[in-house]
Amino acid sequence: MSENIHLERDGRIATITLDKPKRHNAMDASMWQGIGDLMQECDGDAELRCVIIRGAGGKAFSAGADIAEFENERRDKAHALDYGVIVENGVGWIARCRHPVIAQIDGLCVGGGLGVASACDLRVCGESSRFGVPVKRLGLVEAHNEVAPLVHKFGANIALEILLVGDVFPVADAVRMGLVNKVVPDGEVAAAVREMAEKIVEGAPLSARWHKKFIHRLLDPAPLTAEELDEGWDCYDTEDYKIGVKAFLAKQTPEFVGR
Amino acid sequence: MSENIHLERDGRIATITLDKPKRHNAMDASMWQGIGDLMQECDGDAELRCVIIRGAGGKAFSAGADIAEFENERRDKAHALDYGVIVENGVGWIARCRHPVIAQIDGLCVGGGLGVASACDLRVCGESSRFGVPVKRLGLVEAHNEVAPLVHKFGANIALEILLVGDVFPVADAVRMGLVNKVVPDGEVAAAVREMAEKIVEGAPLSARWHKKFIHRLLDPAPLTAEELDEGWDCYDTEDYKIGVKAFLAKQTPEFVGR
Amino acid sequence: MSENIHLERDGRIATITLDKPKRHNAMDASMWQGIGDLMQECDGDAELRCVIIRGAGGKAFSAGADIAEFENERRDKAHALDYGVIVENGVGWIARCRHPVIAQIDGLCVGGGLGVASACDLRVCGESSRFGVPVKRLGLVEAHNEVAPLVHKFGANIALEILLVGDVFPVADAVRMGLVNKVVPDGEVAAAVREMAEKIVEGAPLSARWHKKFIHRLLDPAPLTAEELDEGWDCYDTEDYKIGVKAFLAKQTPEFVGR
Repeated sequence: MSENIHLERDGRIATITLDKPKRHNAMDASMWQGIGDLMQECDGDAELRCVIIRGAGGKAFSAGADIAEFENERRDKAHALDYGVIVENGVGWIARCRHPVIAQIDGLCVGGGLGVASACDLRVCGESSRFGVPVKRLGLVEAHNEVAPLVHKFGANIALEILLVGDVFPVADAVRMGLVNKVVPDGEVAAAVREMAEKIVEGAPLSARWHKKFIHRLLDPAPLTAEELDEGWDCYDTEDYKIGVKAFLAKQTPEFVGR
Repeated sequence: MSENIHLERDGRIATITLDKPKRHNAMDASMWQGIGDLMQECDGDAELRCVIIRGAGGKAFSAGADIAEFENERRDKAHALDYGVIVENGVGWIARCRHPVIAQIDGLCVGGGLGVASACDLRVCGESSRFGVPVKRLGLVEAHNEVAPLVHKFGANIALEILLVGDVFPVADAVRMGLVNKVVPDGEVAAAVREMAEKIVEGAPLSARWHKKFIHRLLDPAPLTAEELDEGWDCYDTEDYKIGVKAFLAKQTPEFVGR
Repeated sequence: MSENIHLERDGRIATITLDKPKRHNAMDASMWQGIGDLMQECDGDAELRCVIIRGAGGKAFSAGADIAEFENERRDKAHALDYGVIVENGVGWIARCRHPVIAQIDGLCVGGGLGVASACDLRVCGESSRFGVPVKRLGLVEAHNEVAPLVHKFGANIALEILLVGDVFPVADAVRMGLVNKVVPDGEVAAAVREMAEKIVEGAPLSARWHKKFIHRLLDPAPLTAEELDEGWDCYDTEDYKIGVKAFLAKQTPEFVGR
């Protein structure tokens, strides 16, 4: 496992830190591998209820793929394809992880960094954060699987603006584009993310998992099967549903058990 | 028919009122059945040009499904499935009704209430309205057909925020999320909706019906058939098209006849 | 070719002008044909890097299809179908053109004018611009292929509001609806568009072309083929990629060659 990415747990909340602050937490191959491994680890842990992804150092969420590696690991199409598999696996596990994932964004969130943040379910940022995918300066192209989250989550117009104009843009544009769920003053991002994570922890964990699963599924145009549709009603046979309704009618706080 | 839901007509505009103000117009099974029946009645009436859905009492559009019923009508998956058919039928008829439908939102618009509002074609609300789908507090899950309107109309990010964070949120968030077409001061919602309805009434009714039909069809990823595509040009053989162009060129107000 | 539409080139930027200012640049059949021909010409010119579409006269981008023609060229369904093929071809070539296309919007942008602008990849407008598709006043209906860009680029809710309410609305609404990427004071639109075009010109041209191609492709729900997915990595074998990475690491400005 890369030393530049690590996971801490605090009760039911896990925090993954991209930790290469001298390079604005730019992602190298071992960090892409690491984020996939750690998200998969989180997915396998039914006790967790929320995952936070953050960058170390306070200046950047992530500056994207580490360009120092481009002349070697991505020097031609054949190598880029191999590298792309690692990136896709890493980003893909953010979506596949059963738990809600929040991006805690301080500072730079560009290129593959915005890719990671876009794959998260929720995004909170500070007022001086900056966003963009300026790969046109490198003669580089985001492949379909890299463009797809921008198109599916923010719309084709936003994807076109981000990639064709290629600016690194301030929070006001990010808000206009719908990139972030919440903007707070610099220095208050961690607290705002923690507050959001605690709201998720308070809710029924199966509700969060099924909602995430169903919403992602609805981005796929393939028709829903009868089995998939049926799963939409499984919650009514759970213990947590009984707990939730009982607590609601009694005006008490429910203590969900996750089954 | 439930006594808690009723329809008034005023010329070419029908208004459906959710009328259980003591319970914030929370929807019980007979009201879900009623909204389906009334929307179907409106759909069958070619003289109508617009339908408004509102809540009685000025404090709520609707607080959603009546939780008092959960311990009985939705006590397990088998019952919830039966109940779900009634809800889906009710909400589905809002989309299937050939006439444009406006949600007139005063106060609370949460859970199934936001489901009803989302199924409408247009939404107008007052400044102190509040929105949300906080079902995670109940251990409850929105099934695919309940999540789909949020995803298809507001986008996956908004659906994730509404369901995972689970807040009841103010108008500023509803605007950011694109949930409402217009916000007006409290007390002016009915007048703003009436003004919007009158604009719809002035337009050619077949234009409204075809536009609603085509836009809904385009949410379905299935390829358009040759027959469907051909219907896009039927308007040019209507009497209203002749009336419209003639009035436009003569700088007169057209009197459309709906054929 | 119509005398009411023409193309100028200035280095790597082409500008197409809708030029019938006495009629607010309303589009007649020969102009629809012309915009298709000119966009196709631009597409065939690999030296270009950006296309701008503007209206002459400063009062309008375009008021839409010329209604004076409706009593003749579009007098019934059979004629409208023929006319529709010309319009679809013209608008379709804006999307098919390999280069990014910017709509430079001063003043009125309504009906088919908004159709043209929506087909562009980016939209910049002045503060007093006005937007809308008020065809309901004419008894007219936008066919599926005319509604689809509104639904796919701005969402179903926006399409419903534009077509059902049918207003001609100010810039504040256009911003809320996500119709424009940038609003600038009247009189500064051309300069803002020029600045945006120059950013595009500075970037690697193949990046722009592939990004445009992939984003448009992702609007089609058909599954991506293995060949299409593979094209996402072709950039890594281009000369421009070597140039871009080398320049980046040397902190120099890259001079891309388009291959």
